[in-house]
Amino acid sequence: MGEFELLARIRARLPRPGPHLRLGSGDDAAITVPGGATATSVDALIDGVHFRRRWSSLAQIGGKALAVALSDLAAMGAEAGEAYVVLGVPADLDEDGCLELLDGLAAVAEETGTTLAGGDVTRAPALTLAITVVGHAESADDLVTRSGARPGDALVVTGELGGAAAGLLLLDADSEARSPLVSPGQTKGERARLIARQLEPRPRLAAGRALAGAGATAMIDLSDGLGGDAGQIAAASGVGLRIEAATLPIEAGVAEPAKAAERDPLELATSGGEDYELLATLPAKLFAGAAAAVERQGGTTLTRIGEVVAGGGVEIRLPGGGLLAAAGFDQLG
Amino acid sequence: MGEFELLARIRARLPRPGPHLRLGSGDDAAITVPGGATATSVDALIDGVHFRRRWSSLAQIGGKALAVALSDLAAMGAEAGEAYVVLGVPADLDEDGCLELLDGLAAVAEETGTTLAGGDVTRAPALTLAITVVGHAESADDLVTRSGARPGDALVVTGELGGAAAGLLLLDADSEARSPLVSPGQTKGERARLIARQLEPRPRLAAGRALAGAGATAMIDLSDGLGGDAGQIAAASGVGLRIEAATLPIEAGVAEPAKAAERDPLELATSGGEDYELLATLPAKLFAGAAAAVERQGGTTLTRIGEVVAGGGVEIRLPGGGLLAAAGFDQLG
Repeated sequence: MGEFELLARIRARLPRPGPHLRLGSGDDAAITVPGGATATSVDALIDGVHFRRRWSSLAQIGGKALAVALSDLAAMGAEAGEAYVVLGVPADLDEDGCLELLDGLAAVAEETGTTLAGGDVTRAPALTLAITVVGHAESADDLVTRSGARPGDALVVTGELGGAAAGLLLLDADSEARSPLVSPGQTKGERARLIARQLEPRPRLAAGRALAGAGATAMIDLSDGLGGDAGQIAAASGVGLRIEAATLPIEAGVAEPAKAAERDPLELATSGGEDYELLATLPAKLFAGAAAAVERQGGTTLTRIGEVVAGGGVEIRLPGGGLLAAAGFDQLG
Repeated sequence: MGEFELLARIRARLPRPGPHLRLGSGDDAAITVPGGATATSVDALIDGVHFRRRWSSLAQIGGKALAVALSDLAAMGAEAGEAYVVLGVPADLDEDGCLELLDGLAAVAEETGTTLAGGDVTRAPALTLAITVVGHAESADDLVTRSGARPGDALVVTGELGGAAAGLLLLDADSEARSPLVSPGQTKGERARLIARQLEPRPRLAAGRALAGAGATAMIDLSDGLGGDAGQIAAASGVGLRIEAATLPIEAGVAEPAKAAERDPLELATSGGEDYELLATLPAKLFAGAAAAVERQGGTTLTRIGEVVAGGGVEIRLPGGGLLAAAGFDQLG
């Protein structure tokens, strides 16, 4: 496989460029005219560390890599702009495999309005994806960091939690050729939906912009798990976060695989990770407006799950009055 | 090694941020306010593909990775802005090794005025670096692509050629425990300089800006070798390039290791690659002014090595009247 031929085949398949791009792939660098502020984030995904090729199609791997990278832009309230993709190709992946992976990536680009503006293709010992995404906003003040949460703010989350972790349990049980985690109460469609939450996440870009516009003071995407990611907001803002476990929007169908694997659905929702929902804080009086904006523009729900308090750390309060220890902080990868 | 601890140690060592950065490492994304046009490029370097750890110190690997990425911005005539670094850490590289590598990278950042604005650290099967660099210019028109060369333009190159390839010959001979390539005419300092051209290249950022300001119509950096990279300008501009071999500025000291390895110095200069000098075209009447600007602002020389002609392809004309076939086109990595 020649690098130049492969790049030419890739370029022929790229979706149409967005408004900021002046010159795309094929020169020493891409040229853009941002006009305002940019948010830039990088993410790496490596076979055996972040995904397993036997669980995912190549298209799913490419799509998830871009979705996960874009999720960081969603958490800033930025508009998706450009993506730059490094693809490290192992010996057992041929040119058609590369193109299948890039087609999955290009589909998420098309769906989210992201321009694939450049990249690099190289040999690698394991399938490697490193993606840089650039998002846009009119000014730096329109972007939401992790550090603006204030005591008294409401703590809110988009969509539903625990689905990605439940999907992982289903995949894990299937792949280890144990009896598959099928329970009488779970339909085939529900299983497929949970597995899709794990293998085909989508970034909450529109919901992120809605929350930024509705007055969010701090925001993060849920990649490592609610407990750990909430801890990032608490630390960056110098505040404490109090979460009421009973209010968490646990995804429908999570209970069955959790039970079969002898896990608590609440644990999946708080430390499972990879749901790529948005966790945000905002003045309590703005909650109703924000929920309406997220529903209208973001196509999902907004749930109030707790509040910001003085102090530090994250408390997850159980209905009985006890506390759940927040987990998921110190992970490499 | 915890990701968060390592990131905290990394952040403590970063050079001061540049004028475009509003928020650096530690949030979901970095925030910048570009103000004008940006040039963005990504490069990946993987152990065993792009470098060998036994030849280079970790600091050299980190420094070269950033230098090579910035060389693409030099070739656009952009000012160095921000860099985003993905570091894939193999099992045999400890936290101190990571920091040594990042110190080498930070030294090149400091030297070039580049802000290390974000990154990602992950496990990987082999040491992996993927670097995204963002450069700035007042407008998109100030950036020089590969496609503006016109028949009649002069073809020029900065600095000297063949040094990096000669350095590679010296390293290769040393490492294979053959008799080292020492010849009576070569001083220790000259050997060290050639090896540094291979292991510690520096991007020609100031020379690139000088050439852009002096009217360059097309520009590329010499990573794959003069023949192959000239072919990129020829193809992108729809022109032919005629290079006079006798005019090539071959680096002092290249002849000795070339002779010992039974290679032609001219071959090292035309297809050795990795010199990271700039190859540019510009109207012939602007050459004298451009040479003066490169010398004054860029701290190096500018040599006229040929001309742009109608047609296509690259011709390297030997002093006797024959032609050297241009090589180095189809390389993966």
